[in-house]
Order: sequence, then structure tokens, then C-alpha cells
Amino acid sequence: MRKIRVGVVGLGNLGRSCIDIVKERSDLFELIAVFSRREVEGTVLLSTVDEYKDKIDILLVCVGSSTDAPILLPQLAKNFSTVDSFDTHAKIGEYIENIQKDQGDVVAVVGTGWDPGIMSLMRIYFDAFVIGKPAESFWGDGVSLGHSNAVREIEGVEDAIQFTIPKEDAVDAVRKGKVVKALDKHKRVCFVVAQNDKHKQIEEAIKTMPNYFAGYETEVNFTSKQHFDKEFKGRVEHGGLVLASDGKSQMEFKLKLESNPYYTASVMVAYAIAAFRLKQEGKTGVFTVADIAPKYLEIGDVISKI
Amino acid sequence: MRKIRVGVVGLGNLGRSCIDIVKERSDLFELIAVFSRREVEGTVLLSTVDEYKDKIDILLVCVGSSTDAPILLPQLAKNFSTVDSFDTHAKIGEYIENIQKDQGDVVAVVGTGWDPGIMSLMRIYFDAFVIGKPAESFWGDGVSLGHSNAVREIEGVEDAIQFTIPKEDAVDAVRKGKVVKALDKHKRVCFVVAQNDKHKQIEEAIKTMPNYFAGYETEVNFTSKQHFDKEFKGRVEHGGLVLASDGKSQMEFKLKLESNPYYTASVMVAYAIAAFRLKQEGKTGVFTVADIAPKYLEIGDVISKI
Repeated sequence: MRKIRVGVVGLGNLGRSCIDIVKERSDLFELIAVFSRREVEGTVLLSTVDEYKDKIDILLVCVGSSTDAPILLPQLAKNFSTVDSFDTHAKIGEYIENIQKDQGDVVAVVGTGWDPGIMSLMRIYFDAFVIGKPAESFWGDGVSLGHSNAVREIEGVEDAIQFTIPKEDAVDAVRKGKVVKALDKHKRVCFVVAQNDKHKQIEEAIKTMPNYFAGYETEVNFTSKQHFDKEFKGRVEHGGLVLASDGKSQMEFKLKLESNPYYTASVMVAYAIAAFRLKQEGKTGVFTVADIAPKYLEIGDVISKI
Repeated sequence: MRKIRVGVVGLGNLGRSCIDIVKERSDLFELIAVFSRREVEGTVLLSTVDEYKDKIDILLVCVGSSTDAPILLPQLAKNFSTVDSFDTHAKIGEYIENIQKDQGDVVAVVGTGWDPGIMSLMRIYFDAFVIGKPAESFWGDGVSLGHSNAVREIEGVEDAIQFTIPKEDAVDAVRKGKVVKALDKHKRVCFVVAQNDKHKQIEEAIKTMPNYFAGYETEVNFTSKQHFDKEFKGRVEHGGLVLASDGKSQMEFKLKLESNPYYTASVMVAYAIAAFRLKQEGKTGVFTVADIAPKYLEIGDVISKI
């Protein structure tokens, strides 16, 4: 296999992790360019990306899922094979359709990372192999970026972080083959920096926030800016658990990540290999992790892993 | 999808489990015939299997891997799509080649079950997603049929069972990203029924048996026939663990099986669905679990699992 010519779109935590991993694996990859929306030294303006059409095999697209990816990916898919980590579960079907509309003869691998990603794979395999008991997913212990942002947007909050923690009794119940309500699976623990006189109303605003906190066991801790910066600033660890049990057979997948973006990037880079090989076989279209046979990830002798 | 017409070859623990599962899932499967080498009531003679060529979509082949499967599968592959649980890791390449030699326009899924099977999948995914640290497999706590048989064949042994137990310190070392020697990963614990005056020579014969026990930490316990029959007779539980860690990211897959043959059968039945759908798409050839995209296992909405 010749070296895969890679471009990275985006310069956030995820993009920077992709750049690091691609450089570490220079036996497999050649980093052609990093694309950015704004002028940043050492990067190329994203608006000129089409000039790289014949110079890049795979674009690793590291942009936000809420607004950026749904607009950007359908544009890029005209000329480029891509791998992304789109993670809005409820919108993946719509997202795929939009990419397919104008897609060129390229491969788009969507929704890689840990969830969606390896936890999706586990749900599919576990459901197939343990009959009649759907696999259950738990997230954490770890930092939820979405929930942390939601708290930060409350008036009076200077800084905040939210830890998602699976509830032990819920995990045990699922292990025994019982069904647990979604709201009873996780506990949400917030650490918040705010002026004393605002604590009461902020705690109330957090605990009643629909979709994010309402109905969950939620713990709100206020802390000083110094303590927050020392203990919580920049923390990106996360993890997950997929369980299936029919009473006879029990399967568990556990993930513990020091850095959520680093792991997501390493899964994206693995699927860049798969995308390249699918493209080389003449396959085109949009692929999720469910559409890709495991062998496409293995560059060595796959039979030795069987 | 119409119902999948299934035949089962073999009447051991595995074959019987396949029959049970296929009957439980009568919404998906129709059991056409059970094939046996000898005349058994309710079964069809295996020598007449070719008469069922157009009546069966998938044969679940439940025969031993050491001598039966390597002879039988290449014969069956002329006319039938098959799923098996061939488990001699070192010979899978050769096994596949022999099936391919005379294969008709059919699908043969080989080496399904737990290992090879879901543990193979984990090794491939973990190796791809955690860079530079190969995934490590542990087996147990559970009963190794092969090792139990090996002990039973020693002169003077009336009955025996062998439990394979992963060593905690080895598991911890791998979790920390260290490399552990193969012989140091597992402990082997035997329970043996034999006359008192033979204990010493039997223990010696076990502990020095090449490939099976020599070099392993091995514990030999002698017990009465009554105690053996009460505690150990018919036990079929097993389990496994696949670990990968690069110090930053840690992935663990854990399997706990009350019945090794029942779980193996449930994985075989899941791959019968995949084999049927591959065949319907016009694909033919030999497939391992690495060659089959996860979506082929999912009969519902795969996007909802992503």
C-alpha cells in the first residue's frame, strides 16, 4: 500500500490530535495540508480546498457536529473522500442523505470515534449475539462537553464542568438482565464558578434544564476560580460501557479515555485507512462503522488476528 | 426478508444448542432438517444431505475442528452455504483454502463463536484504534475441553476437568500497557479422579505435558468420583477478556458464558443471517468474521444503533 495523502480540516483539540497521529504514523501517512477557516500560520485557507482535489486521498474533517459538519461535509463530498466524527445520533440519517445528494465518486466515512464509533459497533454485535436483550450503553466517568457548555451558558456562571457518572446500581441491574430507565442510568455532577449570591438560582437553573438535567440525579458544587482552574480546567477524559446479558451470556465493553479528542482522532485515522482501501477497490458512497468490514482496518495479516 | 431455511449438522452440545435457538427464533428461521452420521430418530442421514440442496439456505455445521470439519466442509461447500465454528487458530488459513478449492456459488462463514469470533473482532478493532500496543487476549475463568480431554487420556485417570484462569497480575500489567509472556498469562487448575497410588505419576504427567501444561503454573487436585460428579460433571462455562492499552486509552472486552456451546451457537445463528443476506446480494466465497460488515448482523434499523 502506498502512503495515504491526508488533509486535516479544523484546528481544535480533535484536529490537532489528528495531526499528531498522522505525523506519528509517517510510515502510513503523508500530511499534505491543514485547512483552516481563518488565516493561521502553517495552514491553508479552507476556501481554497478544491485546489487540492488531486493531491489528497482522505480529508479528516474535525469540525463541530451541531452547525459546521452538516454544511461542510456535503460540500467536501463533491471532490474529497472524508472521515468525520459527526456525533448527533438523532440526525445521522438526515446527515447521510445530505452528503449523498451531490456526492462525487468518493468515500465518506461518517460518525467515527467512540460514540458513535466503537460503542455503536458493540451495540450491533452484542444485540446480534445475545438474543432478546438489547445492549445498554453507559457513558462516563467523564467530562461531557455538551453539558459543560450548557451550564456555562447560564447567566452568572463564570466557568463550569459537568461529569457524567454511570450509576453502579443501574450497571448491576443491567448485568442481571434487568431493564433500567434512561434517566436512572447516570448521575450528573457539576462544578461551577459563580458569585455567592447567584448560587441558588444557578443550581435551580441547572437542575430544571430540560433534556440536559431535568429528571436526572444532579449534583451541583460551587467552587473558587483558583480551585476550578487547578482541578478541572482542560480536562478531557471520558469513557463508556456497553453491556448485554440474557442471564446466560454476559458481554461487556469498557472504554477509559484520558483524552476524548485523542482517542476520537485515533479512530478517525484508523477509518482513514479503511476509506482509502474502499476507494481503491472502487467503492463509493457514505459509510458508517456498521457498513465497513473489520478487515479494512487491518493493515497486517488479518488471519493472524482471527 | 423471508424465513431462512436452516439445516443443522451434528447432534452434540453445539448442534443441540443451534436447534434450540433456531426454534426459539421461528420468526426468522425454519428448521428443515437435522443431519447425523448415524441413524438417530428425527434426524436425516448426513450421507443424503445433497438431496436437500434446494431446500436449505444455510447449514449450521456443528462438528469437531480437529478431524471432522476439515474433511466435511470442503464437501458441503460444493452445494451449501454454511456457517461453522472451526476453532483451530493455527490452521484457519489452510482450512479456508481447502473450502475454496471446489466451492460452488455459495457463502461459507468460518470460525464463528467466541474465540475465534467476537474475540477476534475485538483484537482487530482494538489494534486499529489503540496504536502501537497489540491487544492481549485472556481466556477463562472457564472449562477448557481440550485440556480436560488431554488429562483424561493419561493412564489411570478416571475423569478430569481443567479450568483456565487468567492471572490477575498479568491482567493488571497489560492494563498498564506492559508486555506479558504467554505462559505467564494463565493458571491451569485440574480436578482429577484416580486411584490413590497413581496420584504422584499422574500429577507429574500433567505438569510436564508439552503444549498443554509444561511451563504453565499448574495446580492438580485429586477428588473422589462422587465429589467430581456433583461439582464438575457437565460444566461448560467459559469466558474471555481482550485488553488494549497505550497508557492514554484503555479498551476492555469481557465475556462471561454460562454455556460455551450455547453462546457459540447463538453467534453461529447470528452469522447465518449474515450469510443469507450476503448470498442474497450475490456474494460468494469464504468469509471470516473480519470479512463481514456489522450491518449484515442487524435485521432492524442499523442507524438506530449507531
